[in-house]
Amino acid sequence: MLPVLSVSLRSKSAMAQAQSDPLPSWNDGATKASILDFVARVTTQNGPYFVPVDQRIATFDNDGTLWIEQPMYIQLAFALDRVKAMAPMNPEWKTKQPFAAVLDNDLKALAASGEKGLVEIIAVTHAGMTTAEFEKIVTDWLATARDRRFKRPYTELVYQPMLELLAYLRANGFKTFIVSGGGIEFMRPWTERIYGIPPEQVVGSSIKTRFEIKDGAPTLFRLPDINFIDDKAGKPIGINEHIGRRPIAAFGNSDGDLEMLQWTTLGASGARFGLIVHHTDAEREYAYDRDSHFGKLDVALDAAAVNKWAVVDMKKDWKRIFAFD
Amino acid sequence: MLPVLSVSLRSKSAMAQAQSDPLPSWNDGATKASILDFVARVTTQNGPYFVPVDQRIATFDNDGTLWIEQPMYIQLAFALDRVKAMAPMNPEWKTKQPFAAVLDNDLKALAASGEKGLVEIIAVTHAGMTTAEFEKIVTDWLATARDRRFKRPYTELVYQPMLELLAYLRANGFKTFIVSGGGIEFMRPWTERIYGIPPEQVVGSSIKTRFEIKDGAPTLFRLPDINFIDDKAGKPIGINEHIGRRPIAAFGNSDGDLEMLQWTTLGASGARFGLIVHHTDAEREYAYDRDSHFGKLDVALDAAAVNKWAVVDMKKDWKRIFAFD
Repeated sequence: MLPVLSVSLRSKSAMAQAQSDPLPSWNDGATKASILDFVARVTTQNGPYFVPVDQRIATFDNDGTLWIEQPMYIQLAFALDRVKAMAPMNPEWKTKQPFAAVLDNDLKALAASGEKGLVEIIAVTHAGMTTAEFEKIVTDWLATARDRRFKRPYTELVYQPMLELLAYLRANGFKTFIVSGGGIEFMRPWTERIYGIPPEQVVGSSIKTRFEIKDGAPTLFRLPDINFIDDKAGKPIGINEHIGRRPIAAFGNSDGDLEMLQWTTLGASGARFGLIVHHTDAEREYAYDRDSHFGKLDVALDAAAVNKWAVVDMKKDWKRIFAFD
Repeated sequence: MLPVLSVSLRSKSAMAQAQSDPLPSWNDGATKASILDFVARVTTQNGPYFVPVDQRIATFDNDGTLWIEQPMYIQLAFALDRVKAMAPMNPEWKTKQPFAAVLDNDLKALAASGEKGLVEIIAVTHAGMTTAEFEKIVTDWLATARDRRFKRPYTELVYQPMLELLAYLRANGFKTFIVSGGGIEFMRPWTERIYGIPPEQVVGSSIKTRFEIKDGAPTLFRLPDINFIDDKAGKPIGINEHIGRRPIAAFGNSDGDLEMLQWTTLGASGARFGLIVHHTDAEREYAYDRDSHFGKLDVALDAAAVNKWAVVDMKKDWKRIFAFD
């Protein structure tokens, strides 16, 4: 056989294998099998578990489920960076908490400022501009900010196996949504490019806005008042408000996702799928659960066992974590 | 020519004509031409006004734009019917306003109870049950309730030209949304069947809900507290919250739609389209505008002239109003 033909045949065979395995970054095992089995059930026409395409709704948490959330939520890193960027125009922050703590990189003092301090930081960094201005601030920040450990843009710190899962579900007629405790406007500028999820399929926390016409151009001005917290029991409420029907599959990683998984899987007829991503790989990513400050997974981990939700053991179930691995 | 062949040829020709005219219930004229022209512009690849498919967002008001709103909003007719249906279990309503007014068909006394009375009626008829229970109540009511004038189910009192417009936009890659002052949960049970618009593309007013697990089954319980009013300046806010990008086309019929049309058409680059349905046909439907109690069209009619929004003259522009005409 000519070498060139041999190469061509080998790459064709690799292609065929990739086509036959829609989740190439997942190791074979019970978790992967449970996903494939669920999708086969709900897409088998005339089967007992068939679900029409328009009802194939799948919801995904974002932080810790689709991208990293350690050593702190990426949106918090954004807020702290914004405080530093805005400091020259706010000289009084040098001696005023919680801002002084941020400027001094004093995370202990920052923690001491508690939720009240955090709300103040969110207010000055997330409100006081139009929605269009905020979108530009987020986009510009993401283009330059780098994670300290991985030295990468945050939008590269997304889990390759989950990207494959999103694509696999969509290829099988699912409509994929993000349902995150994070800010809805913080996610929308990039979710379509990174996850293939358009703005109208992003559900998240939000602040209030005010409609104004300025110099003939209509704007929405972001106000320092909470509109909705899309976390814990807020997730089913946000899902109902935005989607208007119950998902048949939900994917999360923390106690904040418990009620979303309950709303998706419990007391419903037909096939339902719940999955928890368990961070068990300190070497390639992070290992944390019941005691973590960000993405605490405790009650939902026990509920997974009771309710037969799949639990991803990242170390064991994922061949690679990131696309660059 | 054999008669059967002649018939066959004629019906083929009629089919061809219908295929070539995507808006057969619209009379030829400036309004229809402006719609066709806009769609041609934004779908012409390499043209100066081309808009990628994912940005082809079109928003439609519901009451008075897609279905009738006279002699009162259909959702108000629903609420009044519900008071009557619930009266046997609430004997005290016989002497208690605003309920006595409803039971006596005393619209004058009902009007005298003002917004406070209306809020009380909405609270008892729209809250105090789960979202699933409310969906069933709405569905059952729509199956049996009839409009007094047309003696038809309300879901037949939808405007045939607008159904054609929805289908035409979707055939050209648009994603169509409802953005209505009406209750989001009042619309979702039937918008997919009647308009081809799925629940996740319906934006509307809402009340608060509470997540509960009852006997192992998760529910959302409807509370008598306003969550969001999707009217006037609320419409751009609702659009931003649910859709996350500005529409390129918006369709309304009253002052409640003014800000939605402004948000869609003003201060934006590229082709934008705004349209107002003007109710001018007392014979086939209703004629009303500046002085109407429901669907008042005053400021937005003046704004249409200034901003070059299309204005449908229902009497002149629509060949027929309803499918049964």
